Amino acid sequence: MVEANLTATRDGPPRAREADEPRDSVVVRFGADQPLRLDAGVSLAPFQIAYKTYGRLNEARTNAVLICHALTGDQHVASTHPVTGKPGWWDIMVGPGRPIDTERYFVICSNVVGGCMGSSGPSSTNPQTGKPWGLEFPVITIRDMVRAQAMLLDHLGIERLFTVVGGSMGGMQVLEWAATFPHRVFSALPVACATRHSAQNIAFHEVGRQAVMADPEWRGGRYLVEGTNPRRGLAVARMGAHITYLSDAALHRKFGRRFQDRDNPTFSFDADFEVESYLRHQGISFVERFDANSYLYLTRAMDYFDIAADHDGVLSNAFKDSPVRFCVVSFTSDWLFPTSESRAIVHALNAAGARVSFAEIVTDKGHDAFLLDEPELFAIVRGFLEAARKACGLEP
Amino acid sequence: MVEANLTATRDGPPRAREADEPRDSVVVRFGADQPLRLDAGVSLAPFQIAYKTYGRLNEARTNAVLICHALTGDQHVASTHPVTGKPGWWDIMVGPGRPIDTERYFVICSNVVGGCMGSSGPSSTNPQTGKPWGLEFPVITIRDMVRAQAMLLDHLGIERLFTVVGGSMGGMQVLEWAATFPHRVFSALPVACATRHSAQNIAFHEVGRQAVMADPEWRGGRYLVEGTNPRRGLAVARMGAHITYLSDAALHRKFGRRFQDRDNPTFSFDADFEVESYLRHQGISFVERFDANSYLYLTRAMDYFDIAADHDGVLSNAFKDSPVRFCVVSFTSDWLFPTSESRAIVHALNAAGARVSFAEIVTDKGHDAFLLDEPELFAIVRGFLEAARKACGLEP
Repeated sequence: MVEANLTATRDGPPRAREADEPRDSVVVRFGADQPLRLDAGVSLAPFQIAYKTYGRLNEARTNAVLICHALTGDQHVASTHPVTGKPGWWDIMVGPGRPIDTERYFVICSNVVGGCMGSSGPSSTNPQTGKPWGLEFPVITIRDMVRAQAMLLDHLGIERLFTVVGGSMGGMQVLEWAATFPHRVFSALPVACATRHSAQNIAFHEVGRQAVMADPEWRGGRYLVEGTNPRRGLAVARMGAHITYLSDAALHRKFGRRFQDRDNPTFSFDADFEVESYLRHQGISFVERFDANSYLYLTRAMDYFDIAADHDGVLSNAFKDSPVRFCVVSFTSDWLFPTSESRAIVHALNAAGARVSFAEIVTDKGHDAFLLDEPELFAIVRGFLEAARKACGLEP
Repeated sequence: MVEANLTATRDGPPRAREADEPRDSVVVRFGADQPLRLDAGVSLAPFQIAYKTYGRLNEARTNAVLICHALTGDQHVASTHPVTGKPGWWDIMVGPGRPIDTERYFVICSNVVGGCMGSSGPSSTNPQTGKPWGLEFPVITIRDMVRAQAMLLDHLGIERLFTVVGGSMGGMQVLEWAATFPHRVFSALPVACATRHSAQNIAFHEVGRQAVMADPEWRGGRYLVEGTNPRRGLAVARMGAHITYLSDAALHRKFGRRFQDRDNPTFSFDADFEVESYLRHQGISFVERFDANSYLYLTRAMDYFDIAADHDGVLSNAFKDSPVRFCVVSFTSDWLFPTSESRAIVHALNAAGARVSFAEIVTDKGHDAFLLDEPELFAIVRGFLEAARKACGLEP
């Protein structure tokens, strides 16, 4: 089975091989007897989850922290990325002595189902055919991702998480954890997210998907089988999305209207402005590490996310009598998941009688602030975990 | 010359023919002896401008109103569009008894140079080759558009405009008119615009251009010659841009998270949500009436726009001792050209000692508000023109 896939993708980019045999990761394979039941009404079996851990699980198994990654993230949260060679995406937050202290906590980060870094997704081998799934892979939801993570915790023998934390799509998973498995989570830290995707968010995602699907090399999703790669479409999708991750002010501060390597315009369609050059680089480098179909599946999962809709249209029903301790964080300049969305979470949690604190961090860095050097965020995460640790009676 | 073009595009879409022989328009052809001198340092000659007029020029030739169109607009401001069959794009604003009253004013609207509705642009026939210009067409600027409009006014025997008015890219032209030809403009009404394109604006445009250029049918800009059409790329560009024309609130009000023709998600990549279906329609219908290369040229012109840079970096220098009466209008929910940009215009005009009034209209309709049914905008335009008419001594 694995053999077949390697053959199919021998000439493909490293990304494609990563889907079945991810480097520097642990893979847990769930057999036909352990299906993942999906919101779409079908089951996925067998399937696999790729993950990384950092730090050590204590004897009582009570110090586990699950980190949920965002749309284009993966399990390589705090160690060198095997494809890009770059530091982990939350290296600044996770490690010895860092706010999420790996000398204290057992940190788990798994690639979401639907992803392309070793958990089952559209670029994985379909065991029924021996070929990459492509669009035959079932459409997944945020809740499906969380169900798969719960199965991973079962496998690891962890009954309850000390905390679950994540930003953006990761924050959606955090909220879904609290809604679906309230007794398996002691505390939850959703950052820069919302309980549902807005019309504008869906619209931006749809443009990205159309950019991918407009690329003739996408081949109706069969590009891995046909040996093509919709890199141009995916790069355009990434460029557009990247704008939404930054604020107008941050773009102005970083680039303004400065020309790239020149003083005057060239009067051409070259990347005259620094911001153009930067965006093109973002698009090109993304394509080297990410799978186009995964991009479709994960954006779709975010679009479908609507916790209230899953609870008779009443958001607070999702958190009724929740035992979870919440800390909700937003950023002033985040226009993709603005503070108003975080306030809606807080109001629902208050209405549900849950314990919640809320912090809006003043920054001009936009949505991406959760990934960047934001001392206030570090202080909040550190303080919240410290307080939760005491409340939990966790040593030391 | 025209003959050659018709041959070349006989099997092309109507759009391509419109470039040389626009329907329902007047065309003025400037010969080799009347070149348009461009900011790029070259001259365009011969060239042509397609325009429409409404109302009657008075004997003193003092009642002319120039309307400048936006990125995807054209000369068909208040009469049926020959390609789409739809009403003019500012029908609601221009006509007998309307705020820009064609019983009182002589309204002129010309297709900008670089456009695709009959003024010389990349889809026009290059007289040197007898084939469509494509990327051989020189890159143009907002000031070039205005210079061409000034030549049109010379041709019409109009020394001074009673007013020049426009929104978005049209507003940029209005500001450029006041900066470049202050003594040919009695009053100016720039709506929802800025004196320069921001880094975020450039970024969005660059994504659109990359979407067009990523389409293999674009053929390095030679699609008209090669008989292809980058419709998918242009549709994606339009979809992305369209989001920026609306506010988050307007998208939420119009579509929210409603499903299209169903109650539940299909768990597929169909246009499940109404907002997806709407965007796809916007993309598809745009391609039927617009030229992909023109889209590149006009977005580029907007990106290059920076009035301060043309005046030693000091914006107020552009309007020093300006005799023009200004009325600047912005919309609260316009995040593409936010009110802060309009305030910067007003501050520069104040610093320059110019006469200016300013109105920020409260609306949730976003940037596109200038094209929509905004009674407050109608009242402002009517009131400003009325006051200017009295100040000018214009009868009746």
